[in-house]
Amino acid sequence: MKKINFPSEVGAGNSPLAAFVHSVYPVSDQVIHYINTHSVAKHAGRGDHLLKAGDVCKHLYFIQKGVIRGYVKDGSKEITTWISTENEMVTSIRGLHIQQPSVENIQAIESCELVAIPMDALHYLYDHFVEMNIVARRILEQYYGNAEDRAFISRIPNASKRYYHFLETQSNLANRISLKYIASYLGMTIETLSRIRGKQVKK
Amino acid sequence: MKKINFPSEVGAGNSPLAAFVHSVYPVSDQVIHYINTHSVAKHAGRGDHLLKAGDVCKHLYFIQKGVIRGYVKDGSKEITTWISTENEMVTSIRGLHIQQPSVENIQAIESCELVAIPMDALHYLYDHFVEMNIVARRILEQYYGNAEDRAFISRIPNASKRYYHFLETQSNLANRISLKYIASYLGMTIETLSRIRGKQVKK
Repeated sequence: MKKINFPSEVGAGNSPLAAFVHSVYPVSDQVIHYINTHSVAKHAGRGDHLLKAGDVCKHLYFIQKGVIRGYVKDGSKEITTWISTENEMVTSIRGLHIQQPSVENIQAIESCELVAIPMDALHYLYDHFVEMNIVARRILEQYYGNAEDRAFISRIPNASKRYYHFLETQSNLANRISLKYIASYLGMTIETLSRIRGKQVKK
Repeated sequence: MKKINFPSEVGAGNSPLAAFVHSVYPVSDQVIHYINTHSVAKHAGRGDHLLKAGDVCKHLYFIQKGVIRGYVKDGSKEITTWISTENEMVTSIRGLHIQQPSVENIQAIESCELVAIPMDALHYLYDHFVEMNIVARRILEQYYGNAEDRAFISRIPNASKRYYHFLETQSNLANRISLKYIASYLGMTIETLSRIRGKQVKK
């Protein structure tokens, strides 16, 4: 992955992560400056891994452009557990609470433009700029809801209903990413997914 | 559900919720006092509902004693999406971010002793005592990880592996709650669950 440093001044050259944080809650110039000077732009090619299972995730990534998925290996099979896109942040979710080796892999499934900030810098922000906890609380409330939705969707016994629920909640991905990732995320074969989509088109 | 008010003084008579909050991050006496005066003890009998789908969840509940589950109706079938127990907090997860009608039901599956605090009071705390955002951020990081784990467990194709993962992460519940809830949570029939447990005993 290529790295590009952001300018350290507050202003037009702000890290897109700083701009996003500010849109969640109006943080101080010091926070913007700290994010600008501690985050870097990264490019990840399609198929590149940001994290492999067994490693500790040392960064949080903000997606400016592209699509990222999380997956867990079950023998030789890959189980896709989440798919994230523009203006979302990704990291090892189970590593947020305690920095420990990840059970999941994080992979770019499109060519991606990212902003990376070290987890250490994030904790510095929490400890020294209390308003960053307001930002994090608001984002986590939303992400927690989304994770619960992922826990629900996979428990729907009927494959068609799982796909329709996916369309309701993540319709932007339905015609963007490879069917194999949607099928893996929805716990069905590509053949079943194609059949369901075929029926939908006929309607 | 029966309600009991907590004493308004800071001290021995604190709400168990205030004590829990303080254990996550040392909050001020004003926060403790606010929680004491805005939370009430509640008793929920086995089978009682704290929330029905379609209603807006107006409270966050802290479980002092007992077990609570969240479930979603799929036709006449109930899909258990989470199970929580002592020292955990429950509410409509999708209602945390925006107060909107819940798609899930919340039910006591054991006789429960709870502390209830209105969502309005929680938002007052966030707005007026910034350190409550530190408490919430820490709790949400953990709960987000747990929700992600629920999203993963339900995607494991093999029923035995799902049960073993459940034992690894929530072993305290394995011999405490009715098999029907474990089976519903793990997306298998009671017969399959009994067979897996039978094999495990023989080992």
